[in-house]
Amino acid sequence: MKEVAILRLGHRPQRDQRVTTHVGLTARALGATGMYLSSNDTGIVKSILDVGERWGGKFFVENDVGWHSCIRRWKEAGGTVVHLTMFGLNLPDVEEEILSRDKILVVVGAEKVPGEVYHLADFNVAVSNQPHSEISSMAIFLDHLMGKDALVQKFPNAQVRVVPCKEGKLVEEIKPEE
Amino acid sequence: MKEVAILRLGHRPQRDQRVTTHVGLTARALGATGMYLSSNDTGIVKSILDVGERWGGKFFVENDVGWHSCIRRWKEAGGTVVHLTMFGLNLPDVEEEILSRDKILVVVGAEKVPGEVYHLADFNVAVSNQPHSEISSMAIFLDHLMGKDALVQKFPNAQVRVVPCKEGKLVEEIKPEE
Repeated sequence: MKEVAILRLGHRPQRDQRVTTHVGLTARALGATGMYLSSNDTGIVKSILDVGERWGGKFFVENDVGWHSCIRRWKEAGGTVVHLTMFGLNLPDVEEEILSRDKILVVVGAEKVPGEVYHLADFNVAVSNQPHSEISSMAIFLDHLMGKDALVQKFPNAQVRVVPCKEGKLVEEIKPEE
Repeated sequence: MKEVAILRLGHRPQRDQRVTTHVGLTARALGATGMYLSSNDTGIVKSILDVGERWGGKFFVENDVGWHSCIRRWKEAGGTVVHLTMFGLNLPDVEEEILSRDKILVVVGAEKVPGEVYHLADFNVAVSNQPHSEISSMAIFLDHLMGKDALVQKFPNAQVRVVPCKEGKLVEEIKPEE
């Protein structure tokens, strides 16, 4: 079982709220253990944890984390740091090597990323070398990384779950086990 | 070669600007031919077309399209309509059937999607049945649909291209052929 966490860099409170929420919720849905946020935005933390409370699992969000020490600690613990950037090596060209790693910190930048991050990362990886979206890049990267488990994660202690439907919407309340 | 286009539903000008731009740019990067926008927002059209002008390819954006007639025309032309929704059947369970189709309209909703869309779609597909992001759902769906070509699309007539780097950033200007 892989241990994967996200480091969200350069989030600007207010302006990046929706994008960072999409990053956090996608990471949770695809089986990451949590997200380190290198800014101070308790609103983001609350909204992602609220989803986790209702939909299950143990996804964590750590607010206002120093990115430099976060990367350093991860590397000291034997983890691999993958920085997603359109300027990096294209995913198909480095995927095999990265898939062999078990403990990965995925660095997801906003508009400006300090040059040092490129240097500290073990891999600078592009999800295609075209301009698009850090949300999409992370989603595709995690999907590749998690393989066949990506879209069928388990979320223990959920209060609700979707009952998949050909047409329409069905959400089921789950009673806690006694 | 598959023909894939996006129908972006329920975009609210201003509020959804960044999210819809991420949807359009991701669709372009992963090889979709274009995006129909069921709202009137010429700002979005311009910003996505500007990227296409600089980075190449022929991605189109059609503004203020009626979603009902867009879906109907697509079906009349023999196309398949896939509506992405967390309430649908999970992608791993329907993927094989969808991958056999060559002409696909991917419907990407914002917060509220009219019930009729669920009925008109040939497939209602969840990219995991967890709440996350329409950008991520579309990105992963297109990546699966395009297979090994997804991240290595060609973009003819680009003015610039990234030279993939292990570290750092390198963008090359391309001189038009004489």
